[in-house]
Amino acid sequence: MVKHALSVTREQDFAAWYQAVIAEADLAEESGVRGCMVIRPWGYGIWERIQRLLDDRIKATGHENCYFPLFIPLSYFEQEAAHVEGFAKEMAVVTHPRLVADGKGGLVPDPQARLEEPLVVRPTSETVIGHAFARWVQSWRDLPVLINQWANVVRWEMRTRMFLRTSEFLWQEGHTAHASANEAREETLRMLEVYRSFAEECLALPVVAGEKPENERFPGAVATYSIEAMMQDGKALQAGTSHFLGTNFAHAQNIRFQNAAGELEHANTTSWGVSTRMIGGVIMVHGDDDGLRVPPRIAPWQVVIVPMLRDAPEDGALVAYCRALQADLARESALGEPVRALLDLKPAKSAAKRWGWVKKGAPVVIEVGGRDMAAGTISVIRRDRLYRADGKLDSVATPREGFAVAALLEEVQAGLHAEARARLAANITPAADFAAVEAQFAEGAKAPGWLEVQWSRPTGAALEAVTERLKALKLTLRNAPMDQAPADGPCIFTGAPAVERVLVGRSY
Amino acid sequence: MVKHALSVTREQDFAAWYQAVIAEADLAEESGVRGCMVIRPWGYGIWERIQRLLDDRIKATGHENCYFPLFIPLSYFEQEAAHVEGFAKEMAVVTHPRLVADGKGGLVPDPQARLEEPLVVRPTSETVIGHAFARWVQSWRDLPVLINQWANVVRWEMRTRMFLRTSEFLWQEGHTAHASANEAREETLRMLEVYRSFAEECLALPVVAGEKPENERFPGAVATYSIEAMMQDGKALQAGTSHFLGTNFAHAQNIRFQNAAGELEHANTTSWGVSTRMIGGVIMVHGDDDGLRVPPRIAPWQVVIVPMLRDAPEDGALVAYCRALQADLARESALGEPVRALLDLKPAKSAAKRWGWVKKGAPVVIEVGGRDMAAGTISVIRRDRLYRADGKLDSVATPREGFAVAALLEEVQAGLHAEARARLAANITPAADFAAVEAQFAEGAKAPGWLEVQWSRPTGAALEAVTERLKALKLTLRNAPMDQAPADGPCIFTGAPAVERVLVGRSY
Repeated sequence: MVKHALSVTREQDFAAWYQAVIAEADLAEESGVRGCMVIRPWGYGIWERIQRLLDDRIKATGHENCYFPLFIPLSYFEQEAAHVEGFAKEMAVVTHPRLVADGKGGLVPDPQARLEEPLVVRPTSETVIGHAFARWVQSWRDLPVLINQWANVVRWEMRTRMFLRTSEFLWQEGHTAHASANEAREETLRMLEVYRSFAEECLALPVVAGEKPENERFPGAVATYSIEAMMQDGKALQAGTSHFLGTNFAHAQNIRFQNAAGELEHANTTSWGVSTRMIGGVIMVHGDDDGLRVPPRIAPWQVVIVPMLRDAPEDGALVAYCRALQADLARESALGEPVRALLDLKPAKSAAKRWGWVKKGAPVVIEVGGRDMAAGTISVIRRDRLYRADGKLDSVATPREGFAVAALLEEVQAGLHAEARARLAANITPAADFAAVEAQFAEGAKAPGWLEVQWSRPTGAALEAVTERLKALKLTLRNAPMDQAPADGPCIFTGAPAVERVLVGRSY
Repeated sequence: MVKHALSVTREQDFAAWYQAVIAEADLAEESGVRGCMVIRPWGYGIWERIQRLLDDRIKATGHENCYFPLFIPLSYFEQEAAHVEGFAKEMAVVTHPRLVADGKGGLVPDPQARLEEPLVVRPTSETVIGHAFARWVQSWRDLPVLINQWANVVRWEMRTRMFLRTSEFLWQEGHTAHASANEAREETLRMLEVYRSFAEECLALPVVAGEKPENERFPGAVATYSIEAMMQDGKALQAGTSHFLGTNFAHAQNIRFQNAAGELEHANTTSWGVSTRMIGGVIMVHGDDDGLRVPPRIAPWQVVIVPMLRDAPEDGALVAYCRALQADLARESALGEPVRALLDLKPAKSAAKRWGWVKKGAPVVIEVGGRDMAAGTISVIRRDRLYRADGKLDSVATPREGFAVAALLEEVQAGLHAEARARLAANITPAADFAAVEAQFAEGAKAPGWLEVQWSRPTGAALEAVTERLKALKLTLRNAPMDQAPADGPCIFTGAPAVERVLVGRSY
């Protein structure tokens, strides 16, 4: 019986386990500000890796980064009716630009300085970026406009959960304008594919890319696509979205251009984003009962060396031995980049350090004691295979001479992906009728995964009836996968001939 | 007589010239949101280069990045009296978390949802980070805490100027906690030196590092240090600050630790930051009457290749010739990094592109026409030496074979620095008495630079008298340079024996 590092297991209480991983891996903590978290160095380091790798891919597809204001005048939202409908209930509003003493030792918003037009803290930037596009775009020669920004956004949330749903979160939002609907649709799908391949290759997160049903579209969008990842409790996490906005925003914001024939046309626009929510997905896909397991590509430190110091004169030689090892490892290249190796010299017991790095999920931990040094060995722990068959920690004595870590890191990256991919494949099953859906998601079902059902893609009130039936089972329509077999049966909701397959599941 | 690319010269109207550079180099523009700017791709690309290079140096000195909330509860500010005094008048306050329809087709903050405690949009994060430090620090083993964040901050400004003073700006803020005052002082000076060397080596910005006088200290600080750069109009720009906060914030926020002897002590803290303001400094130090000149280290593109296309069948071969050149240049390494070379294939006339890149300040522009290709040459324009003695554009036909750009880029980087360094040195002059100060800054004086004066470092009311006298001449005390000759005369303000030398000048 293995004694695990966390006090709660996934099996016992998945939600409590999730919070325990975040706390024990020093990823984030409550800030004291309602709904906002502090992202600690290990959590932020993962985000920086995500930024660096995704930013490279965003730039490689021709996009440039910009920065737009945090504040958006209220009137900008009023111009795009469908958009505001979707966001109106959850925005932080700045009403005063100044504080004054209240005469009782405290401070209050200065009543003399109320803003004439309140400012909204951006929940997303379509409106303010659309205004810039209207200035920038005059002729077909100005198109396409391909931009992106990394920013913080705020959506006031009543119930928050770290990384998954916080009032403030960090993300990137891409915004583009094109001369034709076709080109904008291609862009929407191109970025969906960037997200899909990034999730699979960098986060080791298997996802299903597909189109969201009408009721799950971004407010104001013509079509919304997503990548959906499956957590270990079987729930779906929408890990990224890409929207084809048609000319809806261009009409509201007057983004027009003169085409080659000299006629004025409205531009077609897109937007697409991923956020710190992805880190929640990494935790719930790769974490285990000992904490997080970080895929090497996004691990701030891929290898951590822990010298077993004893406050003794020999410590100096041991540190030198470890420093040489660190330098050797840092000269290696793994997964296309120099290996990131840390020598942990903090003043703490080495066992505490070992377990700290296990809980943080560093892919490889190397312990070196005086005896190792004397024997010319190092003790290597792989985070993805922590225990031997007998339940003991699998710390492998390995010759120091000739030790190389690159292949090991590549194996860990591939192994985490394969494990998660097998779980996803095993937990998407077809359901031929609604009774099968009800059976799968009956009270008490553990990790029921997702069902693939055929449907006639009803709209309006008929779609609402579908979502209500699903809601009674706490289910939602996730997406209609991109690469799917043709429909060949009846719609499980309406009985009409089905037109496509769509995934149904519980979600975060 | 050279015809320059901008419609206004530095000589004619420095302030109008500054705005013209920002507009013509596509650095930034007004956003439509009061006091907030849109940072366009070329401007943001420079900021990304600044971030990357400075972040490496911040990490190399042992700091880790984190992220703290955008919103700070009002009560956090009330705890630190000296701090709030300094900021109270210019903060954006969120009072409502929700909007509702006003019944007239518009939106208003929901009167039913007024926040019990207003939230301040962070003007700086000492208060909220101090609360985290109080949670993180228990024992001397937890110290030092060395963290940094890259973030947006808001200080409501009545008069704004792009990059120099905007209501929202981007910056990094470092925050550290230490077991002793000495260690915290060392940290304060270490980061001042990081800023100084970064400004000199990366931005090619000569600066004077020194301590700010008491009246210019950060609210709540024991000592504030700055780097000051000299603009071409002779004014000073404070380009970065580093603060020793003593135990002031630790007392207010209860940051205490048990020392090795088991006693409770307050930690000593520091904070330090630089912002997008640095870009304003780069413009005003390196810009000329043809636009911006970007030092190669921070240029998003160091070399831009402009093929002179004619919408003719030969265009294909010309593009291939240029693409091969781009690939060759990208294989070179300059200033420690791969060369960043762009092939500009946008649909515009090549002369317009050339002047566009000149105004943006790309360090090297290479034009290639059909005749160049036939002759095996390329036409090279150095942005730092744009014109020949006869006033013609200095476009140098150069053999394509064996052309390498690394040494040229290193020369441009060094040349811009040397030019600015000479200007700084020539424009700091000693003044033996206050009459000399008055003479130097008499009405109509052009680019009067800075004066170095000796003073007795008065405090309180005596210091106020000094600042008032200076204010009448629109002058401020900049800083007391770190490496200065001992004082050897009387204080020019009080007549008492001087204790140090301090710089006096006009400023942004």
